[in-house]
Amino acid sequence: MEPALSFQLFTGEATGPRLGKVTTAHGSFDTPVFMPVGTAGTVKSLNPDQVAQTGARIVLGNTFHLLLKPGPDIVAAHGGLHGFMQWPHSILTDSGGFQVFSLSGLRKLDQDGVTFRSPLDGHLERLTPERAVEIQQALGSDIAMVLDVCPPAEAPRDEVRRAMDLSTDWAGRCLVHHRRPDQALFAIIQGGADGQLRAEHAQSLTGSPFDGFAIGGLSVGESTGDMYAAIEATTPHMPVAKPRYLMGVGTPQNLVEAVARGVDMFDCVLPTRTARNGRLYTSLGVLNISNARHAHSLEPLDAACDCYTCQHFSRAYLRHLFMARELLSYQLNSIHNLRYFQNLMAAVREAIATGGFEDFRRAFHSALQPEEE
Amino acid sequence: MEPALSFQLFTGEATGPRLGKVTTAHGSFDTPVFMPVGTAGTVKSLNPDQVAQTGARIVLGNTFHLLLKPGPDIVAAHGGLHGFMQWPHSILTDSGGFQVFSLSGLRKLDQDGVTFRSPLDGHLERLTPERAVEIQQALGSDIAMVLDVCPPAEAPRDEVRRAMDLSTDWAGRCLVHHRRPDQALFAIIQGGADGQLRAEHAQSLTGSPFDGFAIGGLSVGESTGDMYAAIEATTPHMPVAKPRYLMGVGTPQNLVEAVARGVDMFDCVLPTRTARNGRLYTSLGVLNISNARHAHSLEPLDAACDCYTCQHFSRAYLRHLFMARELLSYQLNSIHNLRYFQNLMAAVREAIATGGFEDFRRAFHSALQPEEE
Repeated sequence: MEPALSFQLFTGEATGPRLGKVTTAHGSFDTPVFMPVGTAGTVKSLNPDQVAQTGARIVLGNTFHLLLKPGPDIVAAHGGLHGFMQWPHSILTDSGGFQVFSLSGLRKLDQDGVTFRSPLDGHLERLTPERAVEIQQALGSDIAMVLDVCPPAEAPRDEVRRAMDLSTDWAGRCLVHHRRPDQALFAIIQGGADGQLRAEHAQSLTGSPFDGFAIGGLSVGESTGDMYAAIEATTPHMPVAKPRYLMGVGTPQNLVEAVARGVDMFDCVLPTRTARNGRLYTSLGVLNISNARHAHSLEPLDAACDCYTCQHFSRAYLRHLFMARELLSYQLNSIHNLRYFQNLMAAVREAIATGGFEDFRRAFHSALQPEEE
Repeated sequence: MEPALSFQLFTGEATGPRLGKVTTAHGSFDTPVFMPVGTAGTVKSLNPDQVAQTGARIVLGNTFHLLLKPGPDIVAAHGGLHGFMQWPHSILTDSGGFQVFSLSGLRKLDQDGVTFRSPLDGHLERLTPERAVEIQQALGSDIAMVLDVCPPAEAPRDEVRRAMDLSTDWAGRCLVHHRRPDQALFAIIQGGADGQLRAEHAQSLTGSPFDGFAIGGLSVGESTGDMYAAIEATTPHMPVAKPRYLMGVGTPQNLVEAVARGVDMFDCVLPTRTARNGRLYTSLGVLNISNARHAHSLEPLDAACDCYTCQHFSRAYLRHLFMARELLSYQLNSIHNLRYFQNLMAAVREAIATGGFEDFRRAFHSALQPEEE
């Protein structure tokens, strides 16, 4: 039988930049890769053709949101999330854990799972490792994630350790319960900003036959330096031959720096969320389209960009749409920001392939200017 | 020199269904035609490629909205509205009159023009026939409209007559002032619901060398019967060889009935506005996607429809997007409703071409079911 996921590593070791290719039941994608987030069965403001046109070949779906609305049964009736949202390429689903532990309302953790109130209608929901696996099997994603316990960034060391140990236990329960042969399962390494805990948790998980390993619990309020240190403490203890996924990260700078430390996969709402706020990524840094200096500009957003938005529209038009709160603004801005992230990762891969990653990294950082007010 | 607009009439007379073709500086479109409304330089929620994919080859732009934001100078700097919004096909602009006379705030009419406050920032603006022409020349539309005076539906007969007489005077001033050789100019026939006034106004305008004639001042609150009667009173007095445009109308039923009475061109916000409210046109009538009966439906919106939305997505998915207020909902719904209107007009043209319009009209009306709650 075919494995649910195969990973070819062309260049790279346990640390440092790596070049590879992941193949799932719905096709292949090159790594390092950026996965746009399709929270509730849609990458916000774009149809699936438009998402694919940005170059994306894998998107992320949020189990938490799909569980609450429309519910896994409706998605499963479409043959899964691929059929529901009409995305023919790969899909990764998270387990819902991160969102549950981010809820400000009622949430009760026990050894067996976590109970919480739906922020939509207040009904009680419960996630256990087994249920998180079952929901993701119903969603039919190509890559599922184990349910983990995510402590807040400011949690004391003993709370981080307890979360870590419970996460190890839950990861094992997910692995035992997982049945779908066409779906891969990734474990999640916790440990907060503590390098020793990170190393320890990596070692306790990587002995089990997961298809890949994620670094979780980062980008939750810690400093950038702490985040990079936590990655550096983790990747040396991860298997070389399996993909590594840094969850919920991040800015273009974060991506380049995490690639430098041995990460293969990323997801983040940043490109689409900032697009809807009129903040647009360019080769020179972040541009704020509401700025009055763009009101008469016939220039494209980024002369270096090949996206539909930059190939057609002026900054003046894009500013007009944004100021008038026209729905097309969110579509065109999202196309651009997602294409920027895809182009960035393609440039990263090209630099690794040609042995020029360090030059690329230096040139990339030095080109960026402070974000426009 | 080429005329700004040419009209070939293949089938038809002064009244009854007509089949034709309009050619402007930006291409041709078959008539009867439906023009999507791109109020502020965008057909709401769709990019220009998507609008063209619905079959549209002419859209409408609103001078009133573009005058206030972003202003005609910015549009003109892009070579006009075609460059600004990147729409390569034909554009018709209205004169702004209808919106000015619909304002609830300050508005002062005199013989020379009309002064009003911007609803955006309260600054005073003024439209005269000459200024309306100049703005539309700056916008560079293929078809410009004269500035007219639009009385409310409940206006007494002498007020309707005064508005009519002033509109005649202003139409003449527009014609004299108009200079752009690549832009057509249409006059607007007023007269309220009074058949005698309609006939009189048609006769007083159609002697002048306008490129086409519009029926204005309808769909402003009068009954459907009054609207049809007003059209019937007007079209016999309009030149056979020039296109007729019924402004701001209407429902699919209105379009079919107006075609039956000799109208060639239509515009309306209905398909895009109702799309954003989850009301979707089908061959069986209007469907409300928020209805719970669609929650588990794997069916397309309309099995008879060839649009991107119907070819890809289930009602359950479309309902999910709408209930979750996902931006993609407005895009997919708008694609469908606009395609429905384009397909309807294509079916109307086909029926006229094959001599089967009366059969088509009967079958069309009898297939429609009451609108879903």
